[in-house]
Amino acid sequence: MKFHDCPTAPSPRRVRIFLAEKGVSLETQMVDLANGEQLTDAFGEINPHRTVPVLELDDGTKLRDSASICMLLEETFPDPNLMGRDAKERAVIAMWQRDVETDGLMAIMECFRNSSKGFRSRALTGPVDYEQIPELAERGRQRVRNFFAELNSRLSRSEYVAGDRFTVVDITAFVAVDFSRAIREKVPEDATHLKRWRDAISARPSASA
Amino acid sequence: MKFHDCPTAPSPRRVRIFLAEKGVSLETQMVDLANGEQLTDAFGEINPHRTVPVLELDDGTKLRDSASICMLLEETFPDPNLMGRDAKERAVIAMWQRDVETDGLMAIMECFRNSSKGFRSRALTGPVDYEQIPELAERGRQRVRNFFAELNSRLSRSEYVAGDRFTVVDITAFVAVDFSRAIREKVPEDATHLKRWRDAISARPSASA
Repeated sequence: MKFHDCPTAPSPRRVRIFLAEKGVSLETQMVDLANGEQLTDAFGEINPHRTVPVLELDDGTKLRDSASICMLLEETFPDPNLMGRDAKERAVIAMWQRDVETDGLMAIMECFRNSSKGFRSRALTGPVDYEQIPELAERGRQRVRNFFAELNSRLSRSEYVAGDRFTVVDITAFVAVDFSRAIREKVPEDATHLKRWRDAISARPSASA
Repeated sequence: MKFHDCPTAPSPRRVRIFLAEKGVSLETQMVDLANGEQLTDAFGEINPHRTVPVLELDDGTKLRDSASICMLLEETFPDPNLMGRDAKERAVIAMWQRDVETDGLMAIMECFRNSSKGFRSRALTGPVDYEQIPELAERGRQRVRNFFAELNSRLSRSEYVAGDRFTVVDITAFVAVDFSRAIREKVPEDATHLKRWRDAISARPSASA
């Protein structure tokens, strides 16, 4: 297996933390997003969507999103379990993943890519150029604030996001909360449950991945 | 198990077709979205996100998105397999699901909810009201056109979306292509591969679900 990574982007960080939790290291190829390596013909052969992460399997299959990559890694390296031990837990974890991806990560990206000067004409990832929509940047920011409130509320009732143990959802949520720095949005001072959880996740060795 | 459904919405239709392919029928509760039943306190208890589908398990667990619902149903009713027979196929199917959800279904919803008079202040699903953004409706439409082109290209190389057999991804893609009627967007005449595939999926008994 070969992992196409970039240290500054949030999506591949989800995979890096996942691998660190599993204690696994893979052959890794860095993609220089800052200098547009994802737009080259060579990278287009690896991923026509021009995003990282990509996991290249030994038979040439290429997985081009962090969710499917983590699914494969979970089955390949089952310990410690991060995605559910039975059908119900797997479904519950998938449900929370969806929430955190949509309401957290996607909201942050909506604000970030629609407001940063470096992303003019690149308001969406992928092969097609889309212009920025300033109103969408504002809406994204409002969504991020609602996400923090929702997450704080959830963590007032549950030690971890998906339940009483650390799972892949905590990785996704932690990457999202951390990446909110890119839009200069802070966890509110009174979000005590969210802060308690963030401190706990930050203290794990995998958080530096 | 109890399935909370609505016949006019695309997301629960994904579950209905999935169940029809499995030959399974569940106890079903209809939610009257047209008259705002999802906004009542009673439905808020079932799903605070105020969306359908919801699958209520016998222990009270509630799954509130079609992807996690299908995951649970796949493990509960394994035949015929729709989500992958081994780790690699499961990951590849998950990857295509992600593409079709993001580039297809979400793009259609982006256009639909940001342009329909009935969705003023309801540009996103969920508990919070967001105003419509007309530019986003236009961008959604452009994304749907690109989705049709991408899907046609994929289906020029593959009999079904995720590979050489019918899977959950065909259900998601079929529901998306069909729901594009809501934004009066048509599959282009020259998208011959997409039309060949759509005819094949339409001919399955499950398509009427």
